[in-house]
Amino acid sequence: MADYIFFFNPMSRAQIARWALHEAGTDYDPVMVPWEDKPAALIRANPMAKVPTIIHHRADGDRSVSEAAAICHYLAEAEAPDLLPKDSEKADYFRWLFFAAGPLEQAVTAKALGWTVSDKEQAMAGFGSYERTVDALEGWLSAHDYVCGARFTMADVYVGSAVDWGLQFKSLPERGAFTAYQARIAERAAYKAAKAIDNKLIEEMQA
Amino acid sequence: MADYIFFFNPMSRAQIARWALHEAGTDYDPVMVPWEDKPAALIRANPMAKVPTIIHHRADGDRSVSEAAAICHYLAEAEAPDLLPKDSEKADYFRWLFFAAGPLEQAVTAKALGWTVSDKEQAMAGFGSYERTVDALEGWLSAHDYVCGARFTMADVYVGSAVDWGLQFKSLPERGAFTAYQARIAERAAYKAAKAIDNKLIEEMQA
Repeated sequence: MADYIFFFNPMSRAQIARWALHEAGTDYDPVMVPWEDKPAALIRANPMAKVPTIIHHRADGDRSVSEAAAICHYLAEAEAPDLLPKDSEKADYFRWLFFAAGPLEQAVTAKALGWTVSDKEQAMAGFGSYERTVDALEGWLSAHDYVCGARFTMADVYVGSAVDWGLQFKSLPERGAFTAYQARIAERAAYKAAKAIDNKLIEEMQA
Repeated sequence: MADYIFFFNPMSRAQIARWALHEAGTDYDPVMVPWEDKPAALIRANPMAKVPTIIHHRADGDRSVSEAAAICHYLAEAEAPDLLPKDSEKADYFRWLFFAAGPLEQAVTAKALGWTVSDKEQAMAGFGSYERTVDALEGWLSAHDYVCGARFTMADVYVGSAVDWGLQFKSLPERGAFTAYQARIAERAAYKAAKAIDNKLIEEMQA
């Protein structure tokens, strides 16, 4: 039995967690979850039955983590201290991790589903507007190679996935700061290994 | 000069960060930010000029943190190790912190702004649906006094604020697990101290 169970579907945000698992260098038992048939073990771990969800087997009991950003950070905490922020990197690391999990995710979803935010509603919506949210991220990535500056950390798995997916599905505009950042993160060995697995599974599903 | 600058408006999510500042027991210079006149120092720290934003003065330079959940966690990291999760609490702590910052915030905003999610759109929206999101949180809080079980941590400042505001503004239903949790967190000395300041400021603004 591996240390982790990984509930996933290759065509989902679970790709983010697989990349994180590979960055963490840990072994895991993958459990593919069909949309219409959720395993009981997944429902026990996460009543919303969302993927990705991981279960970490520990001597004192199992621990469940859901939410892609939480899984990334948890794996760094548990398995890959090198990918955690140093003291001087913590402000940037947590700021942009929560920015991507909150306002950015919300802005991109709202755009994808055709929801519009009036000027008056911007304070309520938290993310403000799609344009301002995207500009803020672009500003940061224009001036920094990675979330924490010069060094890749686990925050780049989550923020990088948001940029990667955004460019692929056209929910983010093709700006130089985004394409350059995407090219940098796509060079990671763990990114390539994780993508190869998910892309092969998607191919098989579509065959 | 205090260790932190705190950009806020009393009628905003900045209330969450003030509570966190008081839990962290740190001193801060508050800077009230009017909606229509954002200070240049805030724009430098956070180009979106959103509140709350904090600046942490360190010997080797200033560090800026935005996003209410990131501010909570950063303050625990920097000032209040007792409010950080122990190893055995990390799964729950990060899972629910990101759940509240992501799906819950998104579900509540969508409801407030009258956005509806079709069954087909639920996978794309990430939060699934408002009902399922609220049920998941209720399930956890029915079985646990705090996010990490028996003990208050910094995650309760953020998740607790979401429940507190949700009940106050009717964006969350009045269920027993929510009202009991709200009553527990409202007993915190730091909650009371922070609320007293913001409520007084709101009163003065409305006088």
